[in-house]
Amino acid sequence: MIQTPQALVASKFRNIPDFPKPGIIFKDITTVIKDKDAFSAVITYFENKYKDKKVDYIAGMESRGFIFGAALADRLGCGFVVIRKPGKLPYKTISETYELEYGTDSLEIHEDAIEAGKNVVIIDDLLATGGTAQAACKLVNRLGANILGVAFVMELGFLNGRKKLDSNIEVTSMIIEQ
Amino acid sequence: MIQTPQALVASKFRNIPDFPKPGIIFKDITTVIKDKDAFSAVITYFENKYKDKKVDYIAGMESRGFIFGAALADRLGCGFVVIRKPGKLPYKTISETYELEYGTDSLEIHEDAIEAGKNVVIIDDLLATGGTAQAACKLVNRLGANILGVAFVMELGFLNGRKKLDSNIEVTSMIIEQ
Repeated sequence: MIQTPQALVASKFRNIPDFPKPGIIFKDITTVIKDKDAFSAVITYFENKYKDKKVDYIAGMESRGFIFGAALADRLGCGFVVIRKPGKLPYKTISETYELEYGTDSLEIHEDAIEAGKNVVIIDDLLATGGTAQAACKLVNRLGANILGVAFVMELGFLNGRKKLDSNIEVTSMIIEQ
Repeated sequence: MIQTPQALVASKFRNIPDFPKPGIIFKDITTVIKDKDAFSAVITYFENKYKDKKVDYIAGMESRGFIFGAALADRLGCGFVVIRKPGKLPYKTISETYELEYGTDSLEIHEDAIEAGKNVVIIDDLLATGGTAQAACKLVNRLGANILGVAFVMELGFLNGRKKLDSNIEVTSMIIEQ
């Protein structure tokens, strides 16, 4: 039987009940990335998606987005840019605040991370409610760059996170849980 | 004039005075990884170093070690394992505490992250005083794995961090600042 890359990768996710708090089922990707075939399958999936798109930068969200984003940037031969939690970036930053279930959080990017007009793909491990992805898109837009797409290894479709993103942004999820 | 990979990468580091606190000159790697040639040169350097060593896993330290480690694991076709700050890993962990200038900090790894006897390379962006690298080595040793080497993009040689590591562990730094 031939297993699709999606089925292989989906089979390696580990569900952790009640992490980081009661009622949430956390999608553990450590069991995906430690499996060389599953990890490689994720990167190949997005390499094929973006290899002909003239990507200048992959932007990865702290910190699981760094794992997939850095490997993808290396495959595509482009630069890698980090979008981080507040206070982590050492140089001048711009910031976007987004809403959580209770309260707010922020993301930052270096003000010189991406030059205006460059083509950027934003990547993270998981699309849930979409708050962090929305903030990341705003940051990249504010730098004047062109968002070619936003990529996720897994999307929790029932949370409707992609509705938070501008409808003209292409969202690509390798796996969608309905 | 031909520039060595080391000279290219060294030229892309950005020094940030007084970050994260007064008196410290922070080595900003965001300007290395956003440069496609410098980023690729780092990964190629370590790919050449380890490609014939039968590496089973690259283990990267949160969170800049994720960037170089994930790309290296993808190049080598091996799995990637994360070593994280306390409370970030969702499954059962083991922990090692290390000393900071003031107080202590800890690192954690999933107890099933690496099987006993597997060959592991540990990677981080910077070797400074060596506390985090020492803790990472202890974690990997406690899982019964074999440390093939510890790799850093830059080593601050004047801080003597490598003396904190067991003398039988091979330390490889692409760039050493004396």
